[in-house]
Amino acid sequence: MLPRGRPRALGAALLLLLLLVVGFFLFGRDPEYGLGTTATLDGDPYGSRNRSTSSLQLLLPPKCEVMLHVAIVCAGYNSSREIITLMKSVLFYRKNPLHLHLITDAVARNILETLFRTWMVPAVVVSFYDAEELKPLVSWIPNKHYSGLYGLMKLVLPSVLPLSLARVIVLDTDVTFSSDIMELWALFGHFSDKQVVGLVENQSDWYLGNLWKNHRPWPALGRGFNTGVILLWLDRLQQIGWEQMWKLTAKRELLTLTATSLADQDIFNAVIKEHPELVHPLPCVWNVQLSDHTLAERCYLEAADLKVIHWNSPKKLRVKNKHAEFFRDLHLTFLGFDGKLLCRELFGCPNQFPPGVEQLQQALAQLDEEEPCFEFRQQQLTVHRVHITFLSHQPPPPRPHDVTLVAQLSMDRLQMLEALCRHWRGPMSLALYLTDAEAQQFLRFVETSPVLSARKDVAYHVVYRDGPLYPVNQLRNVALAQALTPYVFLSDIDFLPAYSLYDYLRASIEQLALGRRQRKAALVVPAFETLHYRFSFPNSKAELLTLLDAGSLHTFRYHEWPQGHASTDYTRWREAQAPYRVQWSADYEPYVVVPRDCPRYDPRFVGFGWNKVAHIIELDAQEYEFLVLPEAFSIHLPHAPSLDISRFRSSPTYRDCLQALKEEFHQDLSRRYGSAALKYLTALQQSRSRA
Amino acid sequence: MLPRGRPRALGAALLLLLLLVVGFFLFGRDPEYGLGTTATLDGDPYGSRNRSTSSLQLLLPPKCEVMLHVAIVCAGYNSSREIITLMKSVLFYRKNPLHLHLITDAVARNILETLFRTWMVPAVVVSFYDAEELKPLVSWIPNKHYSGLYGLMKLVLPSVLPLSLARVIVLDTDVTFSSDIMELWALFGHFSDKQVVGLVENQSDWYLGNLWKNHRPWPALGRGFNTGVILLWLDRLQQIGWEQMWKLTAKRELLTLTATSLADQDIFNAVIKEHPELVHPLPCVWNVQLSDHTLAERCYLEAADLKVIHWNSPKKLRVKNKHAEFFRDLHLTFLGFDGKLLCRELFGCPNQFPPGVEQLQQALAQLDEEEPCFEFRQQQLTVHRVHITFLSHQPPPPRPHDVTLVAQLSMDRLQMLEALCRHWRGPMSLALYLTDAEAQQFLRFVETSPVLSARKDVAYHVVYRDGPLYPVNQLRNVALAQALTPYVFLSDIDFLPAYSLYDYLRASIEQLALGRRQRKAALVVPAFETLHYRFSFPNSKAELLTLLDAGSLHTFRYHEWPQGHASTDYTRWREAQAPYRVQWSADYEPYVVVPRDCPRYDPRFVGFGWNKVAHIIELDAQEYEFLVLPEAFSIHLPHAPSLDISRFRSSPTYRDCLQALKEEFHQDLSRRYGSAALKYLTALQQSRSRA
Repeated sequence: MLPRGRPRALGAALLLLLLLVVGFFLFGRDPEYGLGTTATLDGDPYGSRNRSTSSLQLLLPPKCEVMLHVAIVCAGYNSSREIITLMKSVLFYRKNPLHLHLITDAVARNILETLFRTWMVPAVVVSFYDAEELKPLVSWIPNKHYSGLYGLMKLVLPSVLPLSLARVIVLDTDVTFSSDIMELWALFGHFSDKQVVGLVENQSDWYLGNLWKNHRPWPALGRGFNTGVILLWLDRLQQIGWEQMWKLTAKRELLTLTATSLADQDIFNAVIKEHPELVHPLPCVWNVQLSDHTLAERCYLEAADLKVIHWNSPKKLRVKNKHAEFFRDLHLTFLGFDGKLLCRELFGCPNQFPPGVEQLQQALAQLDEEEPCFEFRQQQLTVHRVHITFLSHQPPPPRPHDVTLVAQLSMDRLQMLEALCRHWRGPMSLALYLTDAEAQQFLRFVETSPVLSARKDVAYHVVYRDGPLYPVNQLRNVALAQALTPYVFLSDIDFLPAYSLYDYLRASIEQLALGRRQRKAALVVPAFETLHYRFSFPNSKAELLTLLDAGSLHTFRYHEWPQGHASTDYTRWREAQAPYRVQWSADYEPYVVVPRDCPRYDPRFVGFGWNKVAHIIELDAQEYEFLVLPEAFSIHLPHAPSLDISRFRSSPTYRDCLQALKEEFHQDLSRRYGSAALKYLTALQQSRSRA
Repeated sequence: MLPRGRPRALGAALLLLLLLVVGFFLFGRDPEYGLGTTATLDGDPYGSRNRSTSSLQLLLPPKCEVMLHVAIVCAGYNSSREIITLMKSVLFYRKNPLHLHLITDAVARNILETLFRTWMVPAVVVSFYDAEELKPLVSWIPNKHYSGLYGLMKLVLPSVLPLSLARVIVLDTDVTFSSDIMELWALFGHFSDKQVVGLVENQSDWYLGNLWKNHRPWPALGRGFNTGVILLWLDRLQQIGWEQMWKLTAKRELLTLTATSLADQDIFNAVIKEHPELVHPLPCVWNVQLSDHTLAERCYLEAADLKVIHWNSPKKLRVKNKHAEFFRDLHLTFLGFDGKLLCRELFGCPNQFPPGVEQLQQALAQLDEEEPCFEFRQQQLTVHRVHITFLSHQPPPPRPHDVTLVAQLSMDRLQMLEALCRHWRGPMSLALYLTDAEAQQFLRFVETSPVLSARKDVAYHVVYRDGPLYPVNQLRNVALAQALTPYVFLSDIDFLPAYSLYDYLRASIEQLALGRRQRKAALVVPAFETLHYRFSFPNSKAELLTLLDAGSLHTFRYHEWPQGHASTDYTRWREAQAPYRVQWSADYEPYVVVPRDCPRYDPRFVGFGWNKVAHIIELDAQEYEFLVLPEAFSIHLPHAPSLDISRFRSSPTYRDCLQALKEEFHQDLSRRYGSAALKYLTALQQSRSRA
């Protein structure tokens, strides 16, 4: 699945091409970079290579050569976060190419496709398999385990993964590596000819039975085995008729046992009890199990080294046992680990970058570090890792006039979120620019806030920090692309909308029959500001006008940048009873409500300045009508300047680079809209001659 | 060196004891926890153990048994930061106890003693050796290398380290480990009987000569060896008369060569050229050298694994070579790594905690997680890792009336620093509560700010984040303990002092002859606030009064907490021409100037509330006179509430816990001051009955 769109763009100007490439990584929705479906894997060049490799070679793999295959079942928002921490731990220690086989529900696929596409880890191929399709294969098994149907899916992997795949490591999402996964893969070399499944003994007394009255576990060999880490010898499993084998066993046991308690693990153990020759016991360090009643200590106290930790209690990191602190620290290491640092190449191996990455690298390498706008160019070319819907989210039900508030923020504006939730009772799509560690702080912040944790209609998209300039328009585009309602309110995080705005906007959209009009409209929400830090928010337009007259409120940036909102015509707005149309004028940057398929923001504007202005020009060029809403308003709250803005406010170079960006933007505009774009250029030239 | 002060405290109440323990770690200045001088090491239980260990044992060390010795020369602020990153990389991979032998100047010793005492890494012993004492041993050697005299000190280690020490690994501060240091130690086992020094070949053509016209390097065997990583077999070196040997060689070479170019490395190479039998060549991966003209690629492209990276260009991380990005990522991993995660015990080894840590852990374990104030108790018992003078600093010259501004902040107040520097032109001691990654951001922030990087009289002390509550008083105490002038101005970061305040305070101290008075005084700096975000700062008391009358300024917290500053008596201040004395009253919390040996802040107050009130009570109890200065003022700027405060503002539990803390504080007060403390308790009871 090589990307097909690329060659067409090659003729265009360099910057334009690169912006396209960046855009492709950020917003492309087509499967690519190995993100195919099962079908696309048949021709996989690595899957078959291992099949004929002898055991000896597996023990001593030639550098760079052996591609390891890892299969993981992953569903929902929480597991999608877990799997990333697991993958960070694997990537930190690995020295071989990896092929991930992810069995996902729609939520996890959406998240992880975007994540891996934008992460761009060299020598990692990712394939997705639809868990929905597998449900019928296991849904007949009654199961009491918290992993639900998804846990059982590990049983059907031999028939789901491509035939060309001879061996695979199967992992639960709640394991953490503290060693090179190649060492685990090499244990296939220790299998006898008959052995098909590698497992670590279960480190609790569960399968011995009698833990409580009427405790009747599934049959197992001794203490049984844990299936958090499995080595599956796929082609041998097919040869011995695995599918029939486990189904027969399960059906027979289910005659007397009402359901599985531990999902797939019960069935694996029942099969192994009957066919002990099939199992290859793995050293206990490869699956150190940290449940409440773990007996893992017997294993790890003697071991020189731990390899894989398994948080197999439903309490996960909150589990209590004697060494929990030690294990938690190992896990926390990767929880906040900067994923970008894992994008290093495999050492001394030929490049194995996903498609497009080398073009990006070449473009970056061609930049002149001495050029004054180098940081701008570099930032524009940076593809940020994106984790969409970082927290649990309930998509809004389809409603024809619904509006999503779209905004972006970094850590220093987190305290705005609760107030925003109180002011806007509709769906929101927010992009957060964070480090990996800050993303964890953010998670805890939401969990401990009753206001925020109650709101499931707010989607948070984490864009990971990289580079010195705030990629404001890339962030806006991420949030915009993830809005799920027909309309979006393009706002900024330091504005609080009128309490009535959400209802009023939906009513206005309906009244104006926007959906049915041929002409495109941008509804303007007039912007105000207070310079007072303590401030009582007006409950109506009448109250707002009183505050305005008293001087406690101003129209937004009236003193510094009146042209930004001049066209809104605040004088007319005071008296207006109905929406009125206004014309674009230079530097206009109102906050608007538009259909969600509106033009994207121009990602070349990084840092501060002109980022909204360019978007409004784009709307005007595409003949959107600007309609000011008479009852709508939004108020900017004061805050200290962000670190990002402080850094550049006083820099003349910064202003020069911004001017260069503006000019390039206008060149592109002329190219796309021809003479219709002349008025914008004239306006720019006038403003320059005034300056 | 076990701490001797502990048993005396055992009889006191539990909380008091624990506060003492915490205080001991934070502020103790006595050498302890292995932080002795050379002399104290003679009885070191580990140094001699290895001496009789056979080579075979070294190759297969028994778990937990082998103590590895590492010697590092470290001088100045920058190297003190570097060595921490190096140590993080070592600690991340190590599985054995370590004994660090640090040869330091006064600056590095001060920083690193505090750091290791508060880091409390299990199974790490640290000994310090005074580099000043070693200077005469090497200062006769002319040297052109940027490491200066300190680089040469590696030559004299065999005579400086304790006789009981048989072997040691010597590291430069600019190396990064990506492997277990035990593997390096085990290479001693490969030495022949004659070999005394293990070194990696130099990965450049330097010693081949002819790099440019008249390039005449010191003699070396072929390409020579690099001394960034050295295995020194100390007792054998002594047996062969190393000291005479290298001195003779150096003196002879210096007859024709004017100076060393690469410090100790030139001399090591010259000795080896004469006595090639002394060197044991180490595999190249143990010192991958990343200079500008590195030939390291020959080594690392074939290697399966890199072990140690050496940033041996003066450009350090900014060095340019083909794989610099790859190596930088390995280094950056540890640069921002949370040091706390390295405090894990050695796995399955007996506890090897520094003294006092187990008491702390027991106290923590005794806390009841279900108790409502659990988080407070836990936070009070948390010992934070402290990195004093994180950036280069020039201590102020001794002046009898000089004043240091003392304050604390976290990342969200960084943008206050430039304004503060413009308002206060004297020395400052600031404690910053940061994560390891934020500390790196902070470093870049200062480097890119012309205002901040020009100021060498501002000392920044990083206190590493740990726990949910802001340890405000612990931070204040760190900043206070590091103030070096006779007087301190105890301020808060969101206040800007009058432009004249620094000069005025020094003049007032001199005029009031504070140093010569028997009675102790606290000079009160009246506090004001503006609620306006954009604000023009008054240049004089007259201008301030005009703003006050116009309502653009208020006395601080006039509306919410008038009792906090009521005693200052703003009405009297308006007219005052001379300092006037005021009496303590309940909840008084002025900003004061006091001698730097004033009482410390009570660290039990974590989070927000009453933290300054308690300190002012303490001053009053110790009979400090409060003198309000007629021309002094300081103005609070508005800001969004910090995340820390937002979290608790609305929590009733929080207020209950604060009340409990107040009561405990008063109990201690009565214990210490007897009936003199009665008035504070009465005031508290009155305020409670009013509530």
